[in-house]
Amino acid sequence: MADSSSDVQRTVFVFDCRLKCGDDSERSERTVRVGGLDFADFLRAISQEFSIGDKEMFVLMTTDRKEITAERFAELKDGSTLHLLQSIDQVLPMATKERILFLPHYDTLIKSGMYEYYASEGQKSIPYALAELIDNSLSATASNTGVRTIEIRLLFDESQGKPTVVVLDNGCGMTSKQLNNWAVYRLSKFTRENNTFRSDHADYVRPCPVPRSLNSDISYFGVGGKQAVFFIGQSVRMITRPAGSLDIHELVLSKEEFERKEKNKEDIYCGFIRNRQPGDSSHITNEDERFLHSVIHEELTKEHFTAVVITGIQTEHIAYLRNDFYLWTRELAHVYHYYIHGTHGNNKKSPHKDSDMTKINIKVCLMEKSKSPRMLNLRDVADDMQTLYINSAADSFEFRVHVDGDGVVEGLIRYHPFLYDRETYPEDPYAHVPNVPEDDEEDCIVSTEGRGKRPIFECYWNGRLIPYTTISEFDWCAWPKKSTPLPAECFSRISGVLFANDCFQVSTNKLTFMDLELQLKDKEAIFTRVVNGQEQRVKIQKEFLQWLKDCHEKWDKQVKFMGFQGTTVRTDV
Amino acid sequence: MADSSSDVQRTVFVFDCRLKCGDDSERSERTVRVGGLDFADFLRAISQEFSIGDKEMFVLMTTDRKEITAERFAELKDGSTLHLLQSIDQVLPMATKERILFLPHYDTLIKSGMYEYYASEGQKSIPYALAELIDNSLSATASNTGVRTIEIRLLFDESQGKPTVVVLDNGCGMTSKQLNNWAVYRLSKFTRENNTFRSDHADYVRPCPVPRSLNSDISYFGVGGKQAVFFIGQSVRMITRPAGSLDIHELVLSKEEFERKEKNKEDIYCGFIRNRQPGDSSHITNEDERFLHSVIHEELTKEHFTAVVITGIQTEHIAYLRNDFYLWTRELAHVYHYYIHGTHGNNKKSPHKDSDMTKINIKVCLMEKSKSPRMLNLRDVADDMQTLYINSAADSFEFRVHVDGDGVVEGLIRYHPFLYDRETYPEDPYAHVPNVPEDDEEDCIVSTEGRGKRPIFECYWNGRLIPYTTISEFDWCAWPKKSTPLPAECFSRISGVLFANDCFQVSTNKLTFMDLELQLKDKEAIFTRVVNGQEQRVKIQKEFLQWLKDCHEKWDKQVKFMGFQGTTVRTDV
Ligand SMILES: Nc1ncnc2c1ncn2[C@@H]1O[C@H](COP(=O)(O)OP(=O)(O)OP(=O)(O)O)[C@@H](O)[C@H]1O
Ligand SMILES: Nc1ncnc2c1ncn2[C@@H]1O[C@H](COP(=O)(O)OP(=O)(O)OP(=O)(O)O)[C@@H](O)[C@H]1O
Ligand SMILES: [Mg+2]
Ligand SMILES: [Mg+2]
Repeated sequence: MADSSSDVQRTVFVFDCRLKCGDDSERSERTVRVGGLDFADFLRAISQEFSIGDKEMFVLMTTDRKEITAERFAELKDGSTLHLLQSIDQVLPMATKERILFLPHYDTLIKSGMYEYYASEGQKSIPYALAELIDNSLSATASNTGVRTIEIRLLFDESQGKPTVVVLDNGCGMTSKQLNNWAVYRLSKFTRENNTFRSDHADYVRPCPVPRSLNSDISYFGVGGKQAVFFIGQSVRMITRPAGSLDIHELVLSKEEFERKEKNKEDIYCGFIRNRQPGDSSHITNEDERFLHSVIHEELTKEHFTAVVITGIQTEHIAYLRNDFYLWTRELAHVYHYYIHGTHGNNKKSPHKDSDMTKINIKVCLMEKSKSPRMLNLRDVADDMQTLYINSAADSFEFRVHVDGDGVVEGLIRYHPFLYDRETYPEDPYAHVPNVPEDDEEDCIVSTEGRGKRPIFECYWNGRLIPYTTISEFDWCAWPKKSTPLPAECFSRISGVLFANDCFQVSTNKLTFMDLELQLKDKEAIFTRVVNGQEQRVKIQKEFLQWLKDCHEKWDKQVKFMGFQGTTVRTDV
Repeated sequence: MADSSSDVQRTVFVFDCRLKCGDDSERSERTVRVGGLDFADFLRAISQEFSIGDKEMFVLMTTDRKEITAERFAELKDGSTLHLLQSIDQVLPMATKERILFLPHYDTLIKSGMYEYYASEGQKSIPYALAELIDNSLSATASNTGVRTIEIRLLFDESQGKPTVVVLDNGCGMTSKQLNNWAVYRLSKFTRENNTFRSDHADYVRPCPVPRSLNSDISYFGVGGKQAVFFIGQSVRMITRPAGSLDIHELVLSKEEFERKEKNKEDIYCGFIRNRQPGDSSHITNEDERFLHSVIHEELTKEHFTAVVITGIQTEHIAYLRNDFYLWTRELAHVYHYYIHGTHGNNKKSPHKDSDMTKINIKVCLMEKSKSPRMLNLRDVADDMQTLYINSAADSFEFRVHVDGDGVVEGLIRYHPFLYDRETYPEDPYAHVPNVPEDDEEDCIVSTEGRGKRPIFECYWNGRLIPYTTISEFDWCAWPKKSTPLPAECFSRISGVLFANDCFQVSTNKLTFMDLELQLKDKEAIFTRVVNGQEQRVKIQKEFLQWLKDCHEKWDKQVKFMGFQGTTVRTDV
């Protein structure tokens, strides 16, 4: 870890293991300087330090029993431990304590996302990496008084610089201490001190319950931002202005820089935050980054913000972000559906005004060479799955689940009726069906049977979708085992959503719940029906079946040929 | 990071930001000592250092614009950066570079497994954590000349000390340098220098191809061991003796120790390796660990070994390991089936002698209070899924897949015939079926239809099972779309195994492949049939269908009542 200027300071720890006596390791240890010495000097220093007589035989070895020769002597690292022995095969008379360092390798940061957002057998993971950055921006804008704006800019116009992804928000920003903490892998809000001084310390406060758990409190593990940026690219520049501050704070982490530090044996986890005036881009001298000048110029109009600027984007990600723009924006609109549209979701027939929710704009902008920019507000996505479910539903059944402790899940089941000649249960044209071979056309007529084999419930956590966890059904809403007066098809005309609060745990990549299903299927879980916001302790199954029956009678409109009357030959047409 | 003894050395970096001129930050920076000074002394030192006149106004602030007062002064950390300003709202005339440290939090190590081996909606993850330690032992014993022995000892007899899990192998052990590297999170064999001296350096050599990729080379990311031990418990003691060494090396990592270091502001990633004689347990003074004396005593008979001693075991893990002994040992026997039984697996009818494979013993031993120890060699597990598949198969079809690059997958399909009155396709009584409610008895009669909806292929990687990845089918072995002369049931009488080599990537927890299915279903993937070890470039589908037809004709034995001959009333019984 020592740089060459301090080479003269280089020392090693030498244990005198020639002793016959027992547990004496503390007393027999000496620190000996090696920097600036040649091998002969060093041997002389050793002889003197340990009072070794002229005729006495001794050998110096590493703790791995490699004998120190002139060649190896030159390579000795600062702080290493050596054993002074009578001969190379002398046993250790007592234990020695060797000081070691075991700093996590920098791959901890730069490879953290690599195997986390893995393609998971066909699923594209870029939207879920971007979601980590949107999560952070949602947390940061949670106490905004005005509009909350989150922008994803894809700067892929190579004439303006190397391809870059910028995620920008008008949230509270970070103080330089918070920016420093951002870079600390695994430092979470539960373990963090965000202030330089203990006297200013403010502990984490759990958010109050809000409908659908839309509390914007989606920062948990202290890994999301790092995993996401290094999954997308190789370098990140965090630029931020905390609310109420005159200064901008800026921090760059990059794979290249880590490699350089390793090569030069510099401290891996040492870096610099740049503190500067808003709008000052004089440090951006690299042509590849010239688009940054305009990003930095925008600072002048912003009282607080954070910009995450990712460069060194993997080429396959560029291709995907460009070519599958429609797909991944639709998936993001799905993930943040209730943040964007409010607790009632995107109901096109009766747009709900959520007075208590500040508006959240999540905008995407794709810039390509000699093309006009492609802009999209996720609110305008009209065919994400939640939008389809909501707008094809004729009725809904609300419930709530209380599990051990403070765990609360709000639930909603929607009825998608049969109308005249077809099921209205929405199809997902982009569903991940990795296991069905492509040419298997005959299998695609799923919609005729409503839900088919799809699970009923999608699961949200603190208001955002956890995409890889679904729940097929609960026993009270499953296909009944005993015959019911209801036609079986009714059970495949329902879709559902679960909104779990922060008492439930998710995996660090926020792709799966840890044990939501286990907890909900536990005997202790209490289901109540919710009517007009009020919980009712009733037999949920009975209520559900009654509701389903009502839905069937009220909403399903089947055209049937009843009472065959004979054939009429029409000669008049 | 500084301990109190060096407090007098404590310094801060002060940038003179009163300057009007532009980019002068380097020249305006000074290092000022704060250790041993009171606030007034410090202000005087600042005035002098920056030649501030008596009447001149100035203010010292943190980079977060907190004014340094006497109270905050006392809390200033070594290496912090301060701004010297004319007034509290003066803008920065030039950028300042603030030194920061961003060491990963120690949760990186101790929580690494927590969200990795998550219960995954009903699946118990302990066997997969133990598998990481077995992986390491398989790698370590790969060049053993004699028997390879891996022992899992569950010391749950509380009268002998606190509950402990020991994983012990007679592998090559670790030098103290390698033991140090073990503790470095994310240091992998591809990035690691295992020798203290560059001159002794040996680079990673990729293993040669072996049948079924049973190359024992299952160490990849530099995380497995740490994730596993801290998922299982809160503390680990690694004890190891490298081949050819006179010395034992020992290292303890524990949650408690990390917390202590944090509290005392000591360096988190500094520790000690204990180098000592074999058999010397004089340092074990804690009553909770007294079972260690016998473990250490055993060292005297072992030329090389590694013991991973885990304590602070989570109580729910103890309960699971005890109560579900049968289940998790069966799952481990499944994961390592081909390492234990050789390339042909556990065929009870014709036990194969793999002359080229050294015997691998994976033994489990559970010790409980006032019970006799429960011992099991995983080789003796008679009902792990692979054993069931192999022994109910009447025939097999071998193939190989070559994908882009060096990726090779060996494949095997087995035929489980219908015999007289029943399918012989083995049932998995412990299959993970999280979504089926428990009381759903009517659904359990799966075996009547053979495979049912289960995927065909289990997938092995470098010879060990990757448990959460399965592949349903390839189009050439799927239910045919056009009518065939074969009865459809034949297609549900097949099971399969895939053996992927090290060119395929798995997630860091080794629970899923990254893109095995994508690669195998790519158009570039070339399937060949293998007969007597020889690849044949043939139409795989045609060959497969022919084989399946042959199997059906040869092996399926259906009892049919053919040619009704009338009823005979027997009066003679
Ligand atoms: N856009 C932002 N605005 C303000 N602060 C931010 C922003 N992004 C990150 N931070 C700060 O940096 C911290 C680290 O972010 P990161 O996403 O790496 O981890 P996390 O959000 O704490 O946990 P998780 O692993 O759940 O994402 C956050 O807790 C937050 O304090
Ligand atoms: N039982 C053992 N015997 C000898 N060396 C071992 C043993 N266990 C671990 N090691 C050494 O410690 C290193 C780190 O082990 P760890 O399991 O944490 O990571 P890894 O095996 O390198 O990668 P992976 O994340 O794939 O497990 C190994 O690469 C190996 O060199
Ligand atoms: Mg986050
Ligand atoms: Mg390993």
